[in-house]
Amino acid sequence: MTSLRCLTFLTDFGLEDGFVAACHGVALRIAPDARLIDITHLVPPGDVRRGAAVLAQTVPAMPPAVHVAVVDPGVGTTRRAVAIQAGSGILVGPDNGLLSWAAAALGGAESAVLLTNESLWNVPVSPTFHGRDIFMPVAAHLVTGTSLTEAGTKIDVADLVKLAAPTSRMLDGEAEGEVLSVDRFGNVQLSIPSTAAADLGIKIGSRLIIRCNRRELTAPYVQTFGAAAPGDLIAFTDSAGLVSLAVRDGSAAQKLSLPPGARVRIAADVPN
Amino acid sequence: MTSLRCLTFLTDFGLEDGFVAACHGVALRIAPDARLIDITHLVPPGDVRRGAAVLAQTVPAMPPAVHVAVVDPGVGTTRRAVAIQAGSGILVGPDNGLLSWAAAALGGAESAVLLTNESLWNVPVSPTFHGRDIFMPVAAHLVTGTSLTEAGTKIDVADLVKLAAPTSRMLDGEAEGEVLSVDRFGNVQLSIPSTAAADLGIKIGSRLIIRCNRRELTAPYVQTFGAAAPGDLIAFTDSAGLVSLAVRDGSAAQKLSLPPGARVRIAADVPN
Amino acid sequence: MTSLRCLTFLTDFGLEDGFVAACHGVALRIAPDARLIDITHLVPPGDVRRGAAVLAQTVPAMPPAVHVAVVDPGVGTTRRAVAIQAGSGILVGPDNGLLSWAAAALGGAESAVLLTNESLWNVPVSPTFHGRDIFMPVAAHLVTGTSLTEAGTKIDVADLVKLAAPTSRMLDGEAEGEVLSVDRFGNVQLSIPSTAAADLGIKIGSRLIIRCNRRELTAPYVQTFGAAAPGDLIAFTDSAGLVSLAVRDGSAAQKLSLPPGARVRIAADVPN
Repeated sequence: MTSLRCLTFLTDFGLEDGFVAACHGVALRIAPDARLIDITHLVPPGDVRRGAAVLAQTVPAMPPAVHVAVVDPGVGTTRRAVAIQAGSGILVGPDNGLLSWAAAALGGAESAVLLTNESLWNVPVSPTFHGRDIFMPVAAHLVTGTSLTEAGTKIDVADLVKLAAPTSRMLDGEAEGEVLSVDRFGNVQLSIPSTAAADLGIKIGSRLIIRCNRRELTAPYVQTFGAAAPGDLIAFTDSAGLVSLAVRDGSAAQKLSLPPGARVRIAADVPN
Repeated sequence: MTSLRCLTFLTDFGLEDGFVAACHGVALRIAPDARLIDITHLVPPGDVRRGAAVLAQTVPAMPPAVHVAVVDPGVGTTRRAVAIQAGSGILVGPDNGLLSWAAAALGGAESAVLLTNESLWNVPVSPTFHGRDIFMPVAAHLVTGTSLTEAGTKIDVADLVKLAAPTSRMLDGEAEGEVLSVDRFGNVQLSIPSTAAADLGIKIGSRLIIRCNRRELTAPYVQTFGAAAPGDLIAFTDSAGLVSLAVRDGSAAQKLSLPPGARVRIAADVPN
Repeated sequence: MTSLRCLTFLTDFGLEDGFVAACHGVALRIAPDARLIDITHLVPPGDVRRGAAVLAQTVPAMPPAVHVAVVDPGVGTTRRAVAIQAGSGILVGPDNGLLSWAAAALGGAESAVLLTNESLWNVPVSPTFHGRDIFMPVAAHLVTGTSLTEAGTKIDVADLVKLAAPTSRMLDGEAEGEVLSVDRFGNVQLSIPSTAAADLGIKIGSRLIIRCNRRELTAPYVQTFGAAAPGDLIAFTDSAGLVSLAVRDGSAAQKLSLPPGARVRIAADVPN
């Protein structure tokens, strides 16, 4: 088996402590030639859905890699620790749904194991820091060529915990979704794929109606921010293929009071 | 041609999303042996001048490298995408002035190309994420030894967009400049080179007059923070060779109410 | 001598400027094959005790490495610049106590030198940026195999500045300590080792009394967060072996109004 060499890392550990670095150190002791790529460590503490969304949107850009993700409010309980083969990647982390969207983004879970091979762990294992003592050392061994089956007991991929996908449904002439994320620019990413917008007849250059918070606004569907005047609300297909809202040189999240999870409906704005 | 190997990266993407990591992934798929150095990803969104200042002050410390910088409010518009050879570095990014001060800091732009060779891009190109789909993949190819001329059409360096240099001028016995940046310690960096201070007769151990916000203060010109008592305002030559103001164990920016862009004048404090 | 290859880096420089990257660049110019691991750069400005605590808790997880740490309010004064051999690591930084706890965590300082060999520095040295111009270049040379004695004049390890250890003492049936750190999750780490709790008869499953801020609370001593209901205060042994307090899905620091440095006493809660 060719070793994967790249090791990506996503957590809610923050950047103010040495937690992330301790995991890097453990990885390099086992796999001195691994390439480490930090995805983010600023997932809001315990926010599994947010972690899952960022992970799923980022892994497609990665080379073949082992992806370690730790947003793990149940650390030390009976929640399982798993490794999942999916396409060109292996996902390692808690079996709380965090990995499920990324597995789908990589082509679907093909096989999975419970992390039961303690000889790959960093002992003694801290009951509150499985990132350092279980997930990262196992991932580092996988990077050096250890096979998935050596990492633990095989389980049925159908038994893996899956997060409910962000809902998006077609109503009568409308698509309804939720705010999946708000980025640093205040751009609002909806769980509505651009293909659904196309099905509603919304295309570049046409206008759409946005319904949220009991308000109704219209905006042009544009290719890029530069097409709007400063302060203008626009809609566009973002880099993950999802319908997103932005305000040029401003914050759409603020203008529309839309936090993650809020419901939004869109429809084509058909001139009478 | 020897490959450059090092690839530096500066953006306003923030650290909460997977945007920076996606670019790292794209780079390593093309240039698996590249050394990636993140300069910062916390440039205030769209603040091209701040990005230009940090980039210009950091690149001189770097080994020969390809420097990718993306602060790009005009992404997807007609603003051009360029690569610029300057001294031991190649700068890659939008042609909105972001690269201009760094080019000067590296010895001046020697040649430049428009990024028109689509075979080097990550396709399909997202209209809103040229960092991932154009700038980073082109830079990664340059790191592996692709020549500048293979990246696109040659243009005249005189036609590159240049930011107006932070103004600094000598008046009658005064030097006037602007606040170029405020760092984490509250230190205020002025656009006045220490050589201008020397021309005014200000030297280590002498006092200077600081005029800003209709106030006039005096401070000693010292070599280092330790020379002052806690709470004291001091002036010094910072690590970029610019006159800077600090308060020992405090914030000069707060004490003087000086945000980036504010005008400040300095003069020698000559005893009567 | 085998080269160490790994180079870790902890500062209070923040992530908004190019300061950290400039140091990375300097390191790679000298040691192109070094592996750089950033521990954290968000130590509160000038907080030597906090920097010392994070460094000491992180270095045990690292491979053999040169550890550079810069929290240096006395930069440019007469405070000394040192390198210390301790176990499998070499610590490089200001001699202000920052390195002292890490030296102990690595097994104790074995030998030390003043950094006096200017041929290893980045010249001209900025009086305010020894991280870039002295500590990092010396560390990079050490990574490439330069010996400690080549870096400068040998000094007695007994003369190194040591921070007072976080106090923790056994009183009559109580252990008293201080809040060592508060992490991103609001977990409160005490300077009381779990062995002291065991000496008081506190064990997993039993309850303990917490006295702080003139209040007295009780909490179960648990193995992990998952054992508590949301909102419950718990105590546990953290990943560094210290007694810590947490609120499940909440912030213990906030609930108990406990900033770093606050005094806390614990005792076994013996049923009458």
